[in-house]
Amino acid sequence: MDLKKSPFIPNDKIPKGGFSFAEFHGSGTGLFFSIKKVLFSEKSTFQEIQILETEEYGRMLILDGAVQTTERDEFIYHEMLVHVPMLSHPDPRKILVIGGGDGGCVREILKHKSVEKLTMVEIDKLVVDCSKKYLPGISSKLNHPKLDLCIEDAVEFVKGRSSNFDVIIVDSTDPVGFASPLTTESFFRSAKKILKENGIYAAQTQGPFFESKSMSVISKRLKKIFPLTSFYLANTPTYPGGIWSFALSYKNSKNDFKITPRILKRKDLKYYSQEIHNASFALPPYVKKILGEK
Amino acid sequence: MDLKKSPFIPNDKIPKGGFSFAEFHGSGTGLFFSIKKVLFSEKSTFQEIQILETEEYGRMLILDGAVQTTERDEFIYHEMLVHVPMLSHPDPRKILVIGGGDGGCVREILKHKSVEKLTMVEIDKLVVDCSKKYLPGISSKLNHPKLDLCIEDAVEFVKGRSSNFDVIIVDSTDPVGFASPLTTESFFRSAKKILKENGIYAAQTQGPFFESKSMSVISKRLKKIFPLTSFYLANTPTYPGGIWSFALSYKNSKNDFKITPRILKRKDLKYYSQEIHNASFALPPYVKKILGEK
Repeated sequence: MDLKKSPFIPNDKIPKGGFSFAEFHGSGTGLFFSIKKVLFSEKSTFQEIQILETEEYGRMLILDGAVQTTERDEFIYHEMLVHVPMLSHPDPRKILVIGGGDGGCVREILKHKSVEKLTMVEIDKLVVDCSKKYLPGISSKLNHPKLDLCIEDAVEFVKGRSSNFDVIIVDSTDPVGFASPLTTESFFRSAKKILKENGIYAAQTQGPFFESKSMSVISKRLKKIFPLTSFYLANTPTYPGGIWSFALSYKNSKNDFKITPRILKRKDLKYYSQEIHNASFALPPYVKKILGEK
Repeated sequence: MDLKKSPFIPNDKIPKGGFSFAEFHGSGTGLFFSIKKVLFSEKSTFQEIQILETEEYGRMLILDGAVQTTERDEFIYHEMLVHVPMLSHPDPRKILVIGGGDGGCVREILKHKSVEKLTMVEIDKLVVDCSKKYLPGISSKLNHPKLDLCIEDAVEFVKGRSSNFDVIIVDSTDPVGFASPLTTESFFRSAKKILKENGIYAAQTQGPFFESKSMSVISKRLKKIFPLTSFYLANTPTYPGGIWSFALSYKNSKNDFKITPRILKRKDLKYYSQEIHNASFALPPYVKKILGEK
């Protein structure tokens, strides 16, 4: 990626030689970020990886031109992707994270004392390595003794394992290219199989404002494979539309995520709370329509 | 405003002569919109007014360089600013809108059958006129017989009137320049006076991600003047951070907005629902901190 060409646009408001990174959402609209410094820019086997020092959002991880996480607002996505499923489960001990190479999910999961073993399956070692080096606040627990880090394709990993996991959390990139198999019925079936009887599957499921088609497709597939699936929302400033959706699926329909979840008593949560947990399942009519719900 | 200079940035993705409008949020970051056509661009006595035809968001109203409303996402802001206070009141008959020249609030308020008289006090006639001409979907009810439209400074309007209103809704621009008197203690005191005993005051109160200082100041002032004030949130894609806050204040502390509100049965609501109404009062810890709440 040529950092001086579009989507990188010149910006006369920042020092000489500076530029902005622009991410397009929909047609001709999007977010721009003034860049102070390019910290890392390489192509791995799977994708282009950049870590940029932005003026406003701190350091930012970009994969194939799409903003993945920023130091300033990552807490929202990671807290909501992790604590909603973890606290919906009565006793989560064995956890599987798929993707999540920056380490944000691992950091949040390890806030739960019940966790005995945490397996993370990330396809791209370079994402892990440069997150460790350049995003220390996000990747802080990637060397934790409870973590078993597997550099492997998750699609292969989930095949033929035994039903061993209490919670599976999928922290993947957009469902295009090498990440697209993570939203197929076949993958959902495999994931369901390796969950214990009262297991929970959670995943980021794109934003309703710009990725409604993708959300709609993923929703149909999840609902076909899992007996009980519900969606929840969070406000994510650096994702398209400032809103992001997540799915929570149960292996066993006797479970009910509408019950008040357990409480996590921590003073370092900035977005998640029990109140937010319950409120996040309230979906505006326009989002229900996308999901085919009433 | 020179439309070919910053904050308007050249954009090579749109046809020759095209450009993008960029709105800065915080330092060096923001949203950009590809512009197909400039429909209106004039300076009124109070502000610069533009109506632009965007590629993705439909028509957009810009006042002094700040995005006010777009055809594509205005439903979120207008439904939430209007229906939360209207349905928190047991019988809203006489309503006052301050600002709101585009007509979005008027359109939503008139969905409530109880309304007998609706007074709108807008300082800038040119905003009303060009909204009528260029934003027909938003301004559609600005000629309604129940509407009394006063082109006047709201600060003067509220002084010395009798206690006549059930609900006051403030749909103002950012609290800078000529709109800043609308967030003073003195204005809140005047507004409280002209509310009936069980009256409700509602206002947009900026976003928590980029305008936290402003929110914090407004919150303190509202809580000083009104005996009961609560804040609620909505996801607003074209406002900074994709999240916006609103205040709901009661003249009489015996009222309680935590009760389930009345229901508005309409099929044309795309963001508001009773579920969303209740959920919108759940505030993430980082927002509570801004508001000095626990």
